[in-house]
Amino acid sequence: MRQNFDVRGGPQLGRQNLPKLRDAMKAQDLDGFYIPHEDEYQNEYLPACNDRLAWATGFTGSAGAAMVFQDTAVIFADGRYTLQVRDQTDRELIDVEGLPEPGPFGWLAKQTLSGKTVGYDPRLMTPNDLDTLTAAAKKSGADLKAVETNPIDQAWDDRPGEPMAKVVAQKIKFAGLDSTDKRQTIADALKEDGADAAIITSPASVAWAFNIRGGDVACSPLPLARAILNNDGSADLFLDPRKVTDELRQHLGNTVTVRAIDELEPAIATLKNKTVSLDPALASAWFFKQVEDAGANILKQRDPVLLPKACKNSTEISGTEAAHIRDGAALTRFLHWLDTEAQSGDITEIDAALKLESFRDELSELNDLSFETISGAGPHGALPHYRVSSASNLELERGSLYLVDSGGQYLDGTTDVTRTVPIGGASDDMKRHYTLVLQGHIALATVRFPEGTTGTHLDALARYPLWQAGLDYDHGTGHGVGVYLGVHEGPQRIAKPWNSVALRPGMIVSNEPGYYREGQYGIRIENLQYVTEPADIPAGERKMLGFANLTWAPLARDLIMTSMLSPAEHDWVDQYHRDVLERIGPLVETEVADWLRAACAPL
Amino acid sequence: MRQNFDVRGGPQLGRQNLPKLRDAMKAQDLDGFYIPHEDEYQNEYLPACNDRLAWATGFTGSAGAAMVFQDTAVIFADGRYTLQVRDQTDRELIDVEGLPEPGPFGWLAKQTLSGKTVGYDPRLMTPNDLDTLTAAAKKSGADLKAVETNPIDQAWDDRPGEPMAKVVAQKIKFAGLDSTDKRQTIADALKEDGADAAIITSPASVAWAFNIRGGDVACSPLPLARAILNNDGSADLFLDPRKVTDELRQHLGNTVTVRAIDELEPAIATLKNKTVSLDPALASAWFFKQVEDAGANILKQRDPVLLPKACKNSTEISGTEAAHIRDGAALTRFLHWLDTEAQSGDITEIDAALKLESFRDELSELNDLSFETISGAGPHGALPHYRVSSASNLELERGSLYLVDSGGQYLDGTTDVTRTVPIGGASDDMKRHYTLVLQGHIALATVRFPEGTTGTHLDALARYPLWQAGLDYDHGTGHGVGVYLGVHEGPQRIAKPWNSVALRPGMIVSNEPGYYREGQYGIRIENLQYVTEPADIPAGERKMLGFANLTWAPLARDLIMTSMLSPAEHDWVDQYHRDVLERIGPLVETEVADWLRAACAPL
Repeated sequence: MRQNFDVRGGPQLGRQNLPKLRDAMKAQDLDGFYIPHEDEYQNEYLPACNDRLAWATGFTGSAGAAMVFQDTAVIFADGRYTLQVRDQTDRELIDVEGLPEPGPFGWLAKQTLSGKTVGYDPRLMTPNDLDTLTAAAKKSGADLKAVETNPIDQAWDDRPGEPMAKVVAQKIKFAGLDSTDKRQTIADALKEDGADAAIITSPASVAWAFNIRGGDVACSPLPLARAILNNDGSADLFLDPRKVTDELRQHLGNTVTVRAIDELEPAIATLKNKTVSLDPALASAWFFKQVEDAGANILKQRDPVLLPKACKNSTEISGTEAAHIRDGAALTRFLHWLDTEAQSGDITEIDAALKLESFRDELSELNDLSFETISGAGPHGALPHYRVSSASNLELERGSLYLVDSGGQYLDGTTDVTRTVPIGGASDDMKRHYTLVLQGHIALATVRFPEGTTGTHLDALARYPLWQAGLDYDHGTGHGVGVYLGVHEGPQRIAKPWNSVALRPGMIVSNEPGYYREGQYGIRIENLQYVTEPADIPAGERKMLGFANLTWAPLARDLIMTSMLSPAEHDWVDQYHRDVLERIGPLVETEVADWLRAACAPL
Repeated sequence: MRQNFDVRGGPQLGRQNLPKLRDAMKAQDLDGFYIPHEDEYQNEYLPACNDRLAWATGFTGSAGAAMVFQDTAVIFADGRYTLQVRDQTDRELIDVEGLPEPGPFGWLAKQTLSGKTVGYDPRLMTPNDLDTLTAAAKKSGADLKAVETNPIDQAWDDRPGEPMAKVVAQKIKFAGLDSTDKRQTIADALKEDGADAAIITSPASVAWAFNIRGGDVACSPLPLARAILNNDGSADLFLDPRKVTDELRQHLGNTVTVRAIDELEPAIATLKNKTVSLDPALASAWFFKQVEDAGANILKQRDPVLLPKACKNSTEISGTEAAHIRDGAALTRFLHWLDTEAQSGDITEIDAALKLESFRDELSELNDLSFETISGAGPHGALPHYRVSSASNLELERGSLYLVDSGGQYLDGTTDVTRTVPIGGASDDMKRHYTLVLQGHIALATVRFPEGTTGTHLDALARYPLWQAGLDYDHGTGHGVGVYLGVHEGPQRIAKPWNSVALRPGMIVSNEPGYYREGQYGIRIENLQYVTEPADIPAGERKMLGFANLTWAPLARDLIMTSMLSPAEHDWVDQYHRDVLERIGPLVETEVADWLRAACAPL
């Protein structure tokens, strides 16, 4: 079983741990302490030893922060987690405030804290966040203090050990490019930008640049590692020596020096007078300070690995296509099961998640799930980031919708797909809402666009049908996806907040508009798609980029109101279903294939 | 005649004036000098005395810059002006480079200028531009020097005098809000932000905040004036005393101190220890330096007048509606004339521009045109910013398209409208392109959207039909429009570059997608529309903003390929034409009304 459904976090954690934290703060003469959710690697999925916010407060959401003082504590969570944060934290001990407004810094700025000292861990904050914190502390009258050792790490007596998964090579047949060549390209770019070296602080960037994978973080084959890439193509790779095998050393070759993670600080100290590329959105304030103290010049720029990593090469694209077709067979078996056995009304969310996992488990190259399956029956479907636990587990009742968002980590690619299906009959409202979401999905699947277009430009196309109906969804429309790496990666993104990164050929993005009726049901349709090369259009004048689809699994035809579709939308659905049948039909057993044929019949 | 069609600028200006400029530079020990197009008021339309770039080089485009050295000179112009800049400047004397790439700063960074001194006028540059210039100069090795007196102003012996139009009150029946109340609202906002005062450097902001109008600039009723607004509602208004009448003093009342423009510098010097709001996008580096030298704290923020000015009150909206209906009658008479007499094939662009002007001249409240009419026959229609002169004047030939973009400044509102009409028969390509542009226009006219949406989010909706056909246009989709103020105003904008300003009720924007086939024809359809209050949609859940139309004049039905339209688009055109007929029909003489009835018949 790759997932567990244990209840996580909860108010007992804050009750137990806040007093311990306050003792440790006192020992460091801190009146207050700022706790972000992020860890020193800016990881999305935290290793257990770095889940400091959950330890201190009990809140396990994927975003948040807390400000702890000797007599008060405040936790900040966004709209997705309004209910969860209240369940998981103790109202007697912790006040709840909004994220991003006021957010911890906005909140701090309004306090009166003259003569008080507020601590922060510079390893957990980007320089931009630190600037905002500094301005807020000034307004409040508080003094800020960077801690040498995080008081949580001191107070956490049963803290889990650091993960120690062996690091392995990602084979060239999956990576497509030799890691020496990758690093040479980056080295040339550094030289062009006038940098002597780049400090790469993000594990995903390290994994891509060295063609390595690890297992230190759930659902992402990341090694907790850092690197210094020099502009001659040589590199230092910093990671715990216990993760390193002879095989790995051989893979890395002689242009890479493998060093223990605690050699990073002295290595930075040798960079005097060098120009060092550092990403202010990824590297912590601690790195900036180390580089400054070393007497090096900082070149603030985007991590030079991000863009080459985001623009997949042809091997990565064909691997991802193959992974998606296998994954589509598993999902199709599951959808068949949902449309037959699971129509009984007494299957639970956990049953369904495990059933889907069992179908994926039969596939070759599967290494992990790419995230914990969102298995949302009825009202739980309306929580876009729902995680089922033994305490929340609902049945898939007849007359409801069931939303399932899931994916796998395969050696050749990463998948992420959402389908929404009716259990029993669906209401007209459900059908109308499903069709509006589908129309937005189709617009974003079929759009052609000129070079220079970013995800922010395209976001409204997926929302337009919902907007016209007085509806919207409170999450982004698409995120980047790695190849056997993070299921959420940048720098591109399709969402309302401004993203300045133009979409480029080879970038994988999700296309996942949704609709959520609180307390009743949620709808989301998600395929992955990748950006295609600029190409001519008949009678057109400018070459246009576009998207090619990656995800193949039938849509819920019973939820589509055909009368709402334009002829072009109608054709798109029929063509998509023909393509699904052609790719997935031959891979599944007769009973499922027969079902699939009906599921993919023209509307 | 409100327009002239003289040939402007030209290479003889650079030949005459560059030597004079170089002498003046030498007298100030400058090896190089930077000349932006903007003047000290960041005006779009320059008073003749401030058109320094044209004086020095001969180039009269609305955007550009030059770098002049003792032995070389370079002019920078964008894609709109590629042809014009080559016509208007002397290749022997001046090299041409691109804007924004490399742009003057990018170009400067690549030169080798150790030991050289490059001058700039801090009154003509925002602090952001100055930062970029400073970094570029550093790379080139040049020393930068802020000039006390612009060497152009010293060398320009027949420089026109400063405009001295009397400043008049904008009546409350047009402004809707008393200027004291406006300034009190701004004062309250300043207090909330912790500012003691704001320096208002933009003439349009001054005009709005004091309910005054001037005549110092073509096509915009702007007074060249500045102001200091204090957070108690009192204000200092700085302008040439010769522009001030007793009537104006009475209008301004006793909370406003009228002072000569050269009292501004000493007034700033008294702001020691005050917190002063200053807009880094509008105020020049000179203002920032004055305020710093005075020992005041600068609060960098958007000019506090911009947003209240952009969100029109109900009086401003109804005035604008009335102005548009009158303007629509003039335009309809003109379109009738185009569809009858002007079909002969021997009418010229100047004839047409004057004809349209004569129809507007008959209207009440007309004060000026809102910009020089773009009267583009055939290939000239493909130049989005074409200005006809006696040298360029083409005939409206049969078998061509004619594009006319024009507007009026009325006391109650400002108009800006573009129509494209066939002269003789149109080709299928012309019709297909017109219909694609129309489809984009309709999408942006009918979109509903949630609060927080900005123009950048909506821009792609207007381009989508063109993109799908492999086409696009290289200008923004919509700009803000004032009420008897600038025809281009911020802070909102509908365009590809990121604009962070959410669209709010009362904001007027243009909706003007286009298509341009170089050397053949141009198509643009432009109406103004304003943002409506958030409102319910049947079966919707969220209140949505939307747009209400302002511009009423028939579209070119002969250019619409009805087979390309969706039923909703077809209905939109018919409804728009019914509305045009209802509003404009009663205002025009029988012959025109009969023609209009046919022009507005259902498709």
